Amino acid sequence: MIVEVVAVGTEMLLGQIVNSNAAHIGAKLAERGFDAHYSVVVGDNHERLTETIRTAIDRADAVILTGGIGPTPDDLTREAICEATAREMAFNQAYATELRERWKSLGRDLPENNLRQAEYPEGGEHLPNPKGTAPGVFLEHEDKMIFALPGVPNEMYLLLEDHVLPRLVAKAGDEAALVNRVLRSWGKGESAVAEQLDDLYHSTTNPSIAYLASGAEIKIRLSAKADTVEAADRLIAPLEAEIRDRLGSLIFAVDDETIESVLQAMLIERGWTVGAAESMTSGSVASQLSAIPGASAVFRGAVIAYATDIKMGLLDVPRETIDTYGVVSPETAMAMADGAAATLGVDVAIAVTGSAGPDAQEHPAGTVCVAVRTPEDTRARVLRMPGDRERVRVYTTTAALQLARLAITGTWWQS
Amino acid sequence: MIVEVVAVGTEMLLGQIVNSNAAHIGAKLAERGFDAHYSVVVGDNHERLTETIRTAIDRADAVILTGGIGPTPDDLTREAICEATAREMAFNQAYATELRERWKSLGRDLPENNLRQAEYPEGGEHLPNPKGTAPGVFLEHEDKMIFALPGVPNEMYLLLEDHVLPRLVAKAGDEAALVNRVLRSWGKGESAVAEQLDDLYHSTTNPSIAYLASGAEIKIRLSAKADTVEAADRLIAPLEAEIRDRLGSLIFAVDDETIESVLQAMLIERGWTVGAAESMTSGSVASQLSAIPGASAVFRGAVIAYATDIKMGLLDVPRETIDTYGVVSPETAMAMADGAAATLGVDVAIAVTGSAGPDAQEHPAGTVCVAVRTPEDTRARVLRMPGDRERVRVYTTTAALQLARLAITGTWWQS
Repeated sequence: MIVEVVAVGTEMLLGQIVNSNAAHIGAKLAERGFDAHYSVVVGDNHERLTETIRTAIDRADAVILTGGIGPTPDDLTREAICEATAREMAFNQAYATELRERWKSLGRDLPENNLRQAEYPEGGEHLPNPKGTAPGVFLEHEDKMIFALPGVPNEMYLLLEDHVLPRLVAKAGDEAALVNRVLRSWGKGESAVAEQLDDLYHSTTNPSIAYLASGAEIKIRLSAKADTVEAADRLIAPLEAEIRDRLGSLIFAVDDETIESVLQAMLIERGWTVGAAESMTSGSVASQLSAIPGASAVFRGAVIAYATDIKMGLLDVPRETIDTYGVVSPETAMAMADGAAATLGVDVAIAVTGSAGPDAQEHPAGTVCVAVRTPEDTRARVLRMPGDRERVRVYTTTAALQLARLAITGTWWQS
Repeated sequence: MIVEVVAVGTEMLLGQIVNSNAAHIGAKLAERGFDAHYSVVVGDNHERLTETIRTAIDRADAVILTGGIGPTPDDLTREAICEATAREMAFNQAYATELRERWKSLGRDLPENNLRQAEYPEGGEHLPNPKGTAPGVFLEHEDKMIFALPGVPNEMYLLLEDHVLPRLVAKAGDEAALVNRVLRSWGKGESAVAEQLDDLYHSTTNPSIAYLASGAEIKIRLSAKADTVEAADRLIAPLEAEIRDRLGSLIFAVDDETIESVLQAMLIERGWTVGAAESMTSGSVASQLSAIPGASAVFRGAVIAYATDIKMGLLDVPRETIDTYGVVSPETAMAMADGAAATLGVDVAIAVTGSAGPDAQEHPAGTVCVAVRTPEDTRARVLRMPGDRERVRVYTTTAALQLARLAITGTWWQS
């Protein structure tokens, strides 16, 4: 099944917005085993949008449009779908009434323009949008599926999960159930992971195994098809168990879990708090630790010690440790972690010191030391990160969170 | 002049990489007044890539391809250009020799595959890539321009600036010189900025004025065409002066300067150091302050005080300030800034406290207090940020850096 993603909006062509929607949808499609051959961005122009939809219907089995379904005259996606599929526009009276009520409850009259959101191509249907006022649109046209979703990422995500992916899966599965499990691993590259699973990869087609690299993370997708979801789950279970057994602590999450959510859950379970001491990453680790709602239950704070004397002053790193081993050393990283635990009053402290470049001093750019203190002990590791300053900082931040996970679960040295 | 951007790479369709190249190129094209109607992503597939190039040549005056020019069999852009334009492949003997020498100097033999990078479509030319081994390609075909650039952003940026934009400008300008100046403003929305310049906008066509919104920043682009660059510069100068006069401290940078680079230069000029005290932004301000090379000359560190008792302990915020005014208050933000200045030993301290959501406590989500301490005084401002947790944090980080700029230049209250 081939799916084409079309993002609508002049602001993307002008570079005012990065088209991250396409990447999000692409990843979700790939996880479920759908193919994408093209992804297109087109501006808010009726003729070009219509032409783009025609082309997409022509060469794909399903088309997912994002953007252009709001209330303003610039929002042309509904009209363009009508024209591309030679349909009239229908009107959802119930939704129009709902819109009017909503505005009334705010003490205001519905602007006439906003009624455009009650329109949809004849033969199609509205997909409810719980986070916004623009409902999505779904239409089957000559055995092709067309979806129009909001451009606002958070609204789009919900409609994609609740309405688009299930319909695609149902259609692709020919009434059968397709179940995907994504095991997320960190600590080895794609080829090393693939090597460890090579015999499994070649000996099974249902479930099938696929690898997806995403930054430093390698995702292993298991896809099974069966008559029911339960039967597909039963096909996946033994393979998943075998892979988990082989990869051990490399696997850190499943499906939509993230390293931030996994860490947060681990800490809550243990009743532990967390903090950071950062030099090179300069706040990125702290920022990640508080990125998701509920962070204040475990995250207390951090000391960003960019200057050496702040490492000594606020983190009590002994001058002789720095003089003997250098600022970028496991010894200094461990002293920073221990100091942060004391200063911040936390159970787990993550410390990072390194050289991001481009100006390397005592060490080549990309040399990084990460230390993690837990109530059990404090350990450090030296890493070498490739790439430029920005990339080194991003990869180091991920590595720091992952090493914290390994330290907390006591699997630091097996990884 | 219409330009189409084509990004080549299956990893983008799979969502493993966000196509930020297209946004970067789109912004650069828009700044120079070129139009883009479509932006396409296509996978590493010879047939589909060829078809995409044909379509792009058909409907645009210039095509910029990114990616697919490396040495592996997956890299198909050169071949696809040949097929789409019915040309043979030529071989750059000089570059092949250079490649061999380079590998030899590393004590290794050049892998035969890598010689593919010496190939280019007949009639075209190589564009040197100082940051990588894959040279770009430029070709004029039936009055259309075709560029193939590396997919690695840092390599692509350079080739775009040095080889692509000048050629596009030269062609569009019909031998004339087109000069652009981009004035970057922060502090008012696009419509408010446009209103202040409305008479200028309508009374001048050369130079012309255009507005580009990019996050919280509004860019004002002045474009002048003349026989020479100097003559175009002379056309821009009085208009630029008038706009700067009207917008005053809203303008923070010109062309490729950023708020980070501007702040760093201001601090170096004054011999001042900087640090941060962050609650809600949790390290994002510190991370930005150290994002560019040379940061260690001015940036010393930060205290991330997510928990209230860390605000009191490490930043000496008096308990009565928090009890009387609340954690999210100008008074607490100012106390954090003063505390950070003392704790970190810095001249300028930026403090942020606020509620990012989704769980609002004493204040609605998006309520933010920023304080800046300079050697002159400490001031605070309350801001209300729209959007979700992530967006509130990003916009607040920008606001904090911008308010630091205003505080340092002593123009805080006029903005």
